[in-house]
Amino acid sequence: MSVTAGILGTVAALRATVAELHGELTRNDLVSWTAGNVSARVPGEDLMVIKPSGVSYDALSAETMVVTDLHGVLVEGELAPSSDTAAHAYVYRHLAHVGGIVHTHSTYATAWAARGEPIPCVLTMIADEFGGEIPVGPFALIGDDSIGRGIVETLRACRSSAVLMRGHGPFTVGTDARAAVKSAVLLEDVARTVHIAHQLGTPPPLRQDDVDRLHARYRNVYGQH
Amino acid sequence: MSVTAGILGTVAALRATVAELHGELTRNDLVSWTAGNVSARVPGEDLMVIKPSGVSYDALSAETMVVTDLHGVLVEGELAPSSDTAAHAYVYRHLAHVGGIVHTHSTYATAWAARGEPIPCVLTMIADEFGGEIPVGPFALIGDDSIGRGIVETLRACRSSAVLMRGHGPFTVGTDARAAVKSAVLLEDVARTVHIAHQLGTPPPLRQDDVDRLHARYRNVYGQH
Amino acid sequence: MSVTAGILGTVAALRATVAELHGELTRNDLVSWTAGNVSARVPGEDLMVIKPSGVSYDALSAETMVVTDLHGVLVEGELAPSSDTAAHAYVYRHLAHVGGIVHTHSTYATAWAARGEPIPCVLTMIADEFGGEIPVGPFALIGDDSIGRGIVETLRACRSSAVLMRGHGPFTVGTDARAAVKSAVLLEDVARTVHIAHQLGTPPPLRQDDVDRLHARYRNVYGQH
Amino acid sequence: MSVTAGILGTVAALRATVAELHGELTRNDLVSWTAGNVSARVPGEDLMVIKPSGVSYDALSAETMVVTDLHGVLVEGELAPSSDTAAHAYVYRHLAHVGGIVHTHSTYATAWAARGEPIPCVLTMIADEFGGEIPVGPFALIGDDSIGRGIVETLRACRSSAVLMRGHGPFTVGTDARAAVKSAVLLEDVARTVHIAHQLGTPPPLRQDDVDRLHARYRNVYGQH
Repeated sequence: MSVTAGILGTVAALRATVAELHGELTRNDLVSWTAGNVSARVPGEDLMVIKPSGVSYDALSAETMVVTDLHGVLVEGELAPSSDTAAHAYVYRHLAHVGGIVHTHSTYATAWAARGEPIPCVLTMIADEFGGEIPVGPFALIGDDSIGRGIVETLRACRSSAVLMRGHGPFTVGTDARAAVKSAVLLEDVARTVHIAHQLGTPPPLRQDDVDRLHARYRNVYGQH
Repeated sequence: MSVTAGILGTVAALRATVAELHGELTRNDLVSWTAGNVSARVPGEDLMVIKPSGVSYDALSAETMVVTDLHGVLVEGELAPSSDTAAHAYVYRHLAHVGGIVHTHSTYATAWAARGEPIPCVLTMIADEFGGEIPVGPFALIGDDSIGRGIVETLRACRSSAVLMRGHGPFTVGTDARAAVKSAVLLEDVARTVHIAHQLGTPPPLRQDDVDRLHARYRNVYGQH
Repeated sequence: MSVTAGILGTVAALRATVAELHGELTRNDLVSWTAGNVSARVPGEDLMVIKPSGVSYDALSAETMVVTDLHGVLVEGELAPSSDTAAHAYVYRHLAHVGGIVHTHSTYATAWAARGEPIPCVLTMIADEFGGEIPVGPFALIGDDSIGRGIVETLRACRSSAVLMRGHGPFTVGTDARAAVKSAVLLEDVARTVHIAHQLGTPPPLRQDDVDRLHARYRNVYGQH
Repeated sequence: MSVTAGILGTVAALRATVAELHGELTRNDLVSWTAGNVSARVPGEDLMVIKPSGVSYDALSAETMVVTDLHGVLVEGELAPSSDTAAHAYVYRHLAHVGGIVHTHSTYATAWAARGEPIPCVLTMIADEFGGEIPVGPFALIGDDSIGRGIVETLRACRSSAVLMRGHGPFTVGTDARAAVKSAVLLEDVARTVHIAHQLGTPPPLRQDDVDRLHARYRNVYGQH
């Protein structure tokens, strides 16, 4: 399989977008060194654009991004794809509405993941963006489909765009790569705020009907239409 | 209603000021992604300048700011106003001395808001700027006057320029937009310091007469006159 | 009293140094908004250079600094001196070896000050720079010599270059303004590290003879000679 | 002993590399003021390149770096070498595989060191990079071989590239200076995340066979080959 002429422009644009979005990971302090990655599905194709493995964020550019098929096989690019490529590919194969995926080890989200505790829905921002508590996925080793399967099964059971993989760190999804990055940024924000709130007491969860109303309004009213 | 010729210059200047003050929100780490907004009352008019909804902080400029009346109806500008416009408008209608309003989800202030606990007056800086403990306002859903009413009722009962809206986040006010931003910055600063002080013990509150003297001095002596 | 011809060059150089050192306060996250100040004694004169009151850090320059005598009376400059000028002046009058003073409300140092607890000497860096635990000074209101007296009495009783003023925040001193800024930076660093160490247990203090040896070595061997 | 003609180019390149890597210490918030240093072994020679003592990070350049032999005796350079030179030299003499060393007082790693507690292996990132829990070394005074000996004995007993020197701070090693800096960055990252995880509970350690598999995979598969 290779990149056909008809989608060359789309892939080129996605390479630039995905490279640029890695800048949001560093700017928002979500990643250390080279640990974290963004990918985007090529719309209508069984292809994705993803970060190469172990490359410094400063050295990332549209040119260094790689293209793989949805089984993680390299289709275009000089470098080996991210070691998390199999997990991204599995999610794209099984969740048709997902157009972008982000993986980080952002501090506070990873701390909840280390304890295997979901982040309770105690703030309007959590209801808005995640539609309820942010769930924990299973502990899974890298190397086969275990991580991807854990992400998909956890996300299918809720409205959240984020999952805290136990003992590992968060994955977030969105309709495109920018939406997945937004989810990763807001996830760390609420993971930190709720952690800090819990240090001196137990904030009460929002009522379920309030959560439902907030989430519905946010998806339909917020932003420019 | 429209912007009349006589106030065109004032509105243009406020658009630039409000756009620039959003830069202080990011510079002081008070906001994530697009969550947070600044507004300014147009002096002597039933108008305000406010951030558009869901627009990235990098894309904010004098031109992208919008002007609404004090019921949140768009008067000038291409974009939809912030989803918090109704709350800002309510405050301007009911508190005549308020010339600027800021809303953020800054981490430590929001953590106190999540637990619904006021920030006790244990530091001279809190006495100086807030004149006593920083109060909690009610939990209120977005969509009608509930948030605005909660802010106004809470601020009327104290000297504080900041209110912690329960389960949501802080609002601050000032005689102009810059003063409201200053309050938002110092609020997060003291919310963080007092949180950290409480992690290893309970700092004693200042005596009420010391609080009164500090607050009076700060309002009358500090700064350039 | 006025600035005499013979020391014009010294004062001009100190204005530039003091203005520039305020940049270290923001760069090291020791201050919010306009809360914090650096001063320098004019060597051999009863004069000091200090920050003006309530001026934004971005607006500080050699020109905006002010010169006062050691009772805080303005000698040179357009702006009113810092509201903490009386405290700085008192310290210069009573501690002849002090050539520079810094005051901040840096977060972790202020949290120890809010509880009125000294920072125990549990790290080699504390022994090196502060020669023992970092002491607490009394609660004192602004407006007379109380703050200055509290600083001087506390510093005379120990080897520390830093004092945590109860319910207020830290003051640090040095042989010149740069040394006082260094002390302010390292103070916040160890205040934060020791706070964090205490969150999960109680780190043991260093032995007194080890503290003495480390402090003596640091003062005599470290750096370029 | 002096730098011979044959290795002049190697030393010049290492000076530039070591100077530049100090920028990663500040960029990743691992150091305050001048406290922290990077060194590199000159391959095949009994020489190392290291930071000068007490010099500001802004003033570091290839030219200001110094070269010493592996007993810390100055061979090339104008300035006195870092006061930690003896510790670096001892490690190079006793651990042949080490090509780079980093010492910092990074906040969270130093907090674990203050309590004398190892960082448990509760995250895949710890298994990947450190191969198990991150160990504590003995308390040792500066001035002789005590620190170096403590580092070597601790690192020989495990797979970790980092050691937490009790009451002092971390040292990390790598096959070259860049690898040692990477270890220092990831050490602080996991020290912080595991600290935060422990604030609200006790995260379970990974199983030993999972740790082994993750560590083996990371060393053999990750990155570009």
